[in-house]
Amino acid sequence: MSVARIAVVAGDGIGTEVTAQARKVIEAVLPGAEFDDYDLGARFYNRTGEVLPQAIEDELARHDAILLGAIGDPSVPPGVLERGLLLKLRFDFDQYVNLRPSKLWPGTTSPLAGLKPGEIDMVVVREGTEGLYVGAGGVLHKDTPAEIATEESLNTRYGVERVVRDAFARAQRRERRHLTLVHKTNVLTKAGSLWARTFAAVAAEFPEVTTEYQHVDAASMFMVSNPQRFDVVVTDNLFGDIITDIAAAVTGGIGMAASGSVNPERKYPSTFEPVHGSAPDIAGQGIADPAAAILSASLLLEHLGHHDEARRVSEAVAAEVASRTPGASLRTDEVGDRVAAAL
Amino acid sequence: MSVARIAVVAGDGIGTEVTAQARKVIEAVLPGAEFDDYDLGARFYNRTGEVLPQAIEDELARHDAILLGAIGDPSVPPGVLERGLLLKLRFDFDQYVNLRPSKLWPGTTSPLAGLKPGEIDMVVVREGTEGLYVGAGGVLHKDTPAEIATEESLNTRYGVERVVRDAFARAQRRERRHLTLVHKTNVLTKAGSLWARTFAAVAAEFPEVTTEYQHVDAASMFMVSNPQRFDVVVTDNLFGDIITDIAAAVTGGIGMAASGSVNPERKYPSTFEPVHGSAPDIAGQGIADPAAAILSASLLLEHLGHHDEARRVSEAVAAEVASRTPGASLRTDEVGDRVAAAL
Ligand SMILES: CC(C)[C@H](C(=O)O)[C@@H](O)C(=O)O
Ligand SMILES: CC(C)[C@H](C(=O)O)[C@@H](O)C(=O)O
Repeated sequence: MSVARIAVVAGDGIGTEVTAQARKVIEAVLPGAEFDDYDLGARFYNRTGEVLPQAIEDELARHDAILLGAIGDPSVPPGVLERGLLLKLRFDFDQYVNLRPSKLWPGTTSPLAGLKPGEIDMVVVREGTEGLYVGAGGVLHKDTPAEIATEESLNTRYGVERVVRDAFARAQRRERRHLTLVHKTNVLTKAGSLWARTFAAVAAEFPEVTTEYQHVDAASMFMVSNPQRFDVVVTDNLFGDIITDIAAAVTGGIGMAASGSVNPERKYPSTFEPVHGSAPDIAGQGIADPAAAILSASLLLEHLGHHDEARRVSEAVAAEVASRTPGASLRTDEVGDRVAAAL
Repeated sequence: MSVARIAVVAGDGIGTEVTAQARKVIEAVLPGAEFDDYDLGARFYNRTGEVLPQAIEDELARHDAILLGAIGDPSVPPGVLERGLLLKLRFDFDQYVNLRPSKLWPGTTSPLAGLKPGEIDMVVVREGTEGLYVGAGGVLHKDTPAEIATEESLNTRYGVERVVRDAFARAQRRERRHLTLVHKTNVLTKAGSLWARTFAAVAAEFPEVTTEYQHVDAASMFMVSNPQRFDVVVTDNLFGDIITDIAAAVTGGIGMAASGSVNPERKYPSTFEPVHGSAPDIAGQGIADPAAAILSASLLLEHLGHHDEARRVSEAVAAEVASRTPGASLRTDEVGDRVAAAL
């Protein structure tokens, strides 16, 4: 049996370039890992008119994990690939833990004055299968003055409890053991109450984890004024989308932002991808930074139980980034080579 | 007839202290303005068990504007006063334009490295009467494993169009004439499409205003990485709640953040208040900064058509803040006195 069967969806633009490096690094650290390439994204859509044929999704399902680059191109109407591929995988593969670590790494600079590497180190656990992302909305009287449009946020005790428990377990394993719930309980009283009550109930199982609650607007402000206060954060799908981008911004942008859309039970494959997009403007030049893609590969290794390999990869990325000459340009493949060589 | 009939809801904690200064400044710049005090907030609620009796709301309705300090106290369950007073006024008085300017003032420091005063100067026009704030949600099987909770975002062409048109008109009056629509059209396809189509339709009436669209997650990132790019922003109720707190954070926190919940037709009174809360921890000491409250008074004057007075007040606040010795402590009433004296 192979040590890991990984589906590679390199995608569009710089996605293909950075994913090649992530794969190279996995090959270096986990000999025997098997890779199957899937050509999905804008090119595939423009050629076939399909986003994710059922037969391909069935094949993806037979892998241990999906290594994804980036999808999207100006030639495709906005939303089509996001919903038809990224969000579809999150829902169909029950990837309810959307994992987004944010760290201020040595060699990177925060836009916040006076912050030193190491001072920001948080993980946001964003719910991935419920909330406003379920697509439960409607339109009446479209294109008339009487038009109304609705969007419904659906939240279940089942769905909230499992992601909250996952976040507590992660907080428990970290040094600071602190977990912040982010919601908007003073306005979204129904969903907010479900989240707050579930959070309190699960907290009783984790007496060593200290807890805190913040409204999403206050949390967004703290992400800027005091990001050091966060350790693990758990929040709903939409709030998580927003605050993880603020977290990425204060840790120097999306250059180092990795993410995993995780099905913790491994009943379905989980997807690992950099937070950045396909960046058509710099695609094909070999100058995209593969750090976030390689860190996503580290999350993949961690998820598949290769803890030592995961740690070594993230340390090698950190060392490579720390060794860069500030302001110097980089070559995508050279970064991958250096990280792979260090392993 | 009086030049302006202003209802004063000073509220709790530092609310009373900073509102006294805002009132002092209005008195200095607009002789003849009349003030009626209303004792609402935590103290009133704890004494009477009511948040906003109908008779008082009827009285408030007969004023030209409401000058509000801050409400909230740990003795009151979270959400009660927010929903029963602040949000109730926004809905009952049809305050559909929630106006939040953010400026990096001379004398204040952005947490962002390298930003100079004047470099951030934006106004967020947040919709105030629709979206997820309408309270349309439900719970089934509460406190059982089968619990579900919903929140519904309601959006009308009528409601979106009027706030979008207001934002275009504001952008038109500014130097840069740039308007950014912030939404999440790739996920909230129904409401997002209504907002995007309405925005495009109204844009045709304002050919001099340049426009741009950003997803809320990208906008949140740009608020940190490049806040200079924003001039006027229009967005829905919840997104506006979040991005205005980021805007406040990058302009040095909520010390200078003023807001108005505006009914532009003046059919109902509009409410003007600092974004900060009642800060029970420093209440009663006379050390709260009244700048945001006085700037809110400036927005009030502007709304009532006293443009020259509004400008003079905001210039006087700017001068007072710029004259402060960095790090020195301040006295609430002395700041008010200095601003009033300068007028
Ligand atoms: C592309 C988009 C649908 C997606 C989201 O909203 O989740 C993205 O912003 C993300 O954070 O992964
Ligand atoms: C207090 C709360 C209900 C309110 C809101 O969410 O609108 C506040 O955060 C604001 O921004 O005025």
